[in-house]
Amino acid sequence: MKKISSFSRIARAYDAIFFDAFGVLKNYQGILPGIAQTIENLLAANKELFVITNDSSRSPKALAQKYLDQGVRAFSEDRVISSGTLAREFLQTKIRSGTLAYLGTSVSAFYIQDLGLPILPIREVTPDRFADISALVLLDEEGFCWEEDLSKSVNLLRHSNIPVVVANTDRTYPVSHLEINIAIGGIANMLEDIVGKRFIRFGKPDLPLFVQAYGQLSRLREIPKDKVLMVGDTLHTDILGGNKFGIHTALVLSGNTISAQCHYLIESSGIIPDFICESVVT
Amino acid sequence: MKKISSFSRIARAYDAIFFDAFGVLKNYQGILPGIAQTIENLLAANKELFVITNDSSRSPKALAQKYLDQGVRAFSEDRVISSGTLAREFLQTKIRSGTLAYLGTSVSAFYIQDLGLPILPIREVTPDRFADISALVLLDEEGFCWEEDLSKSVNLLRHSNIPVVVANTDRTYPVSHLEINIAIGGIANMLEDIVGKRFIRFGKPDLPLFVQAYGQLSRLREIPKDKVLMVGDTLHTDILGGNKFGIHTALVLSGNTISAQCHYLIESSGIIPDFICESVVT
Amino acid sequence: MKKISSFSRIARAYDAIFFDAFGVLKNYQGILPGIAQTIENLLAANKELFVITNDSSRSPKALAQKYLDQGVRAFSEDRVISSGTLAREFLQTKIRSGTLAYLGTSVSAFYIQDLGLPILPIREVTPDRFADISALVLLDEEGFCWEEDLSKSVNLLRHSNIPVVVANTDRTYPVSHLEINIAIGGIANMLEDIVGKRFIRFGKPDLPLFVQAYGQLSRLREIPKDKVLMVGDTLHTDILGGNKFGIHTALVLSGNTISAQCHYLIESSGIIPDFICESVVT
Amino acid sequence: MKKISSFSRIARAYDAIFFDAFGVLKNYQGILPGIAQTIENLLAANKELFVITNDSSRSPKALAQKYLDQGVRAFSEDRVISSGTLAREFLQTKIRSGTLAYLGTSVSAFYIQDLGLPILPIREVTPDRFADISALVLLDEEGFCWEEDLSKSVNLLRHSNIPVVVANTDRTYPVSHLEINIAIGGIANMLEDIVGKRFIRFGKPDLPLFVQAYGQLSRLREIPKDKVLMVGDTLHTDILGGNKFGIHTALVLSGNTISAQCHYLIESSGIIPDFICESVVT
Repeated sequence: MKKISSFSRIARAYDAIFFDAFGVLKNYQGILPGIAQTIENLLAANKELFVITNDSSRSPKALAQKYLDQGVRAFSEDRVISSGTLAREFLQTKIRSGTLAYLGTSVSAFYIQDLGLPILPIREVTPDRFADISALVLLDEEGFCWEEDLSKSVNLLRHSNIPVVVANTDRTYPVSHLEINIAIGGIANMLEDIVGKRFIRFGKPDLPLFVQAYGQLSRLREIPKDKVLMVGDTLHTDILGGNKFGIHTALVLSGNTISAQCHYLIESSGIIPDFICESVVT
Repeated sequence: MKKISSFSRIARAYDAIFFDAFGVLKNYQGILPGIAQTIENLLAANKELFVITNDSSRSPKALAQKYLDQGVRAFSEDRVISSGTLAREFLQTKIRSGTLAYLGTSVSAFYIQDLGLPILPIREVTPDRFADISALVLLDEEGFCWEEDLSKSVNLLRHSNIPVVVANTDRTYPVSHLEINIAIGGIANMLEDIVGKRFIRFGKPDLPLFVQAYGQLSRLREIPKDKVLMVGDTLHTDILGGNKFGIHTALVLSGNTISAQCHYLIESSGIIPDFICESVVT
Repeated sequence: MKKISSFSRIARAYDAIFFDAFGVLKNYQGILPGIAQTIENLLAANKELFVITNDSSRSPKALAQKYLDQGVRAFSEDRVISSGTLAREFLQTKIRSGTLAYLGTSVSAFYIQDLGLPILPIREVTPDRFADISALVLLDEEGFCWEEDLSKSVNLLRHSNIPVVVANTDRTYPVSHLEINIAIGGIANMLEDIVGKRFIRFGKPDLPLFVQAYGQLSRLREIPKDKVLMVGDTLHTDILGGNKFGIHTALVLSGNTISAQCHYLIESSGIIPDFICESVVT
Repeated sequence: MKKISSFSRIARAYDAIFFDAFGVLKNYQGILPGIAQTIENLLAANKELFVITNDSSRSPKALAQKYLDQGVRAFSEDRVISSGTLAREFLQTKIRSGTLAYLGTSVSAFYIQDLGLPILPIREVTPDRFADISALVLLDEEGFCWEEDLSKSVNLLRHSNIPVVVANTDRTYPVSHLEINIAIGGIANMLEDIVGKRFIRFGKPDLPLFVQAYGQLSRLREIPKDKVLMVGDTLHTDILGGNKFGIHTALVLSGNTISAQCHYLIESSGIIPDFICESVVT
């Protein structure tokens, strides 16, 4: 069994650190205690810091502003890499006509705005407009009525063979120290199972987010991959993705993964982090 | 490609008919047009008729009463076989202590009442009571708040390794001629995917419902299996189950399966009905 | 964490015991040491004993004879319940024409013989005969060449939309104390994944085998379900099935499930046996 | 329903073409008839041509040589992008000690050689060496005995929690005009299902192969994504991947996908190519 390490100690060996957001730096209630100081220490030690997140609930700029508002410097807009950006790029090149329907808040709709196409929340889509919808985009688990709008999404996909884009592959996110909530990625799996079609997913564990972060990093400073550490709270996204990208990985127990279960989850999944830490504040 | 047959014509060759309920005899709005007459004709021709349903939203008695109220004789309580009954039997023999938590309406809770154990809807379960819950039962997609109570179910299962019983395996049910809704069986798949545990499912395509209906039938009249026809609107439950039970199967296009898609769904799933009919009113 | 119990001690509380075969009573090399004496003790204590197996490599009669040959009385032909029998019943009622192709040894072909249809091992099926094959039956992982005949099976299923029957759902079976082999049920999952069609499976964890054993038992002696114990070495077949059938279950660590892993496998699968024993010889 | 287009006609609108290899340019028997001329025509029209393949059975250099030997210019080593290269990079950065075990031919072992670690085909791995194996790499479906070495792989993974790397995600490959064979990617899915662990896959539909090809292309000539066409014979790898990368996609019916089935496969999968062509020789 892997022992629990001190994050501050293992961080010393790396020049750049990629952080997952939820469960590592913050939860639904805000920035976690002690994070501001941890980040200051890392900056003082001259580490390059990035956030790699499946959170598409708001723009990278808005995400960056939230860190600043809560006293965490370090994450300017260009250091926040969100899967929503990849979903947006896909829509930009592949969908040239029709209306984009979406599940999410109007704030999350940032990622599909200004593409030259009308957008419409699923709750405003009526069956007579099904034929005009050219893609369905899953952005956020908030901003719609699950009972009504998920069934309406099924009916849309049952009548039209259109691409479905999932901008956040997380199945859950931490609300508080003890609680998690179902995220849009979990809902996406249900819809995919029901309609039997293959959705197009963006986000960890897929590599493009890592490629983008590492590209951004390389423009600032040349750092080899073995000097980059990915820190996350979820084996199937952060750790699997970081491992696959070929960088070292640290699992923290401050979010989706419960301390008492981490060893059997590693054993039973075969997803093996290089380190395990209680949190980044240790 | 299989041709579309007339139901009344193919029914002649059988002595007993097992009907799925939703999408065949009724939808969310009530009994389908023409069903009362169809059933009268079959009774006049001396057919033995049964309903085999994954619907656990109310008791077999209440389900039977609903048919009667809407002018359909033929389905007395003992001719309505519901998966809820199997779930109840499981709980009765396997769960001897603790509290049964459930997702569903208070009417659907019929299936878990009077088992000598306290029952509690998930919305009333607070985290401090997690330790006392000995099983979670999924009965109906109504009667709770999807946004809140599904996440609470995930939190319960994350903290306790308890059996989860799914009393209805249907992923969708027909609301109207054109629309379907997500059913508790679809939600069950999402929860199972998120928590990574194996749930215990009762209902078609599993055989026990068919075994029970055939046993009931055999007490009334001795009819060989090749004189029994299963009629359903869903390939993965009704048709797969009927095929596996070794009886003939007829797919109707009045519910979950859209006429324009039935041929490719049969091809792509490999689940092959013996007959296809527009509806039982043909 | 569940503690390890002595099998002989827990067996006292039951009047009938259903044994899985592989990993409990025997492995690929033969009857396990001490089994003959264990069985004698249970017979002396007036227990009713049955074997419930997914093994379709030979007939119940031949399986029964093997026990006798190796000094284990107790398992006459009518006390050996095999999933092959269910597969045979399915074919008998549902497939009325064409040729039955199969994967398995000629001995395993017992289950598809004398049904009035010609049978043909896949290795003798040539593409020009594809059109005549009316079903493919997966019986045993031996008796054919994996490299050639599995690809040929894929080509058959790619060209014909025919039922595929899996007579053994086990993914692995124990060869020796330390080693397991891939079984036809594991191969079936691969073929199903590749061709994208739904196969028809017989065997644990599905209930019909349990129903048949319990029916057989009831003809001999009336024993309530809570006096019946299922003993098996595999969580996903024996224990899940026994739990679902509503009888008590004991996991033994003499087969597929490794002692050092059983606790995390129970935690991560959510399939919970009532007891855990090192083996039935304890 | 999408109509069948002439490849030579649609190719005119693009400046670069990414070809899948198997089922598009060649099958197991060699280069398909007419390919050499097709490629000459495209070169004459000044198109940039690349091969993006999940084939890890030999090095990009050896793959390139094979095209040349059979009269197809155009694919120099730097224009053949293979998933094996990605698998190699992963091993290089993440696995620093122990022995690399592999399934595949000694030629396919190219991708794991000279990494400073000993390599060993699974057939030479004995149980006493399990503890020394630090990763298992799946390279090719040839070069080992399926019956023996797949079970041995299961035993290895049952005893050691080590990374499993899949260098080819294809489930099948075309042997001739009518026949397909099971590929190592299909076998990988079976092993993953049996051992219950998450493998690390490289290859289409994941994006890194596309990113690498587009990067290579960009060094030669600046071509926007909407002037690049991906051509493949498989919906779940070539078309899904090309769509996700944001380039246009053409499905050809000369390989894994049968002409008579392509429309229902598109409908039932929801993976929608921009074009369908009989082959690239049309």
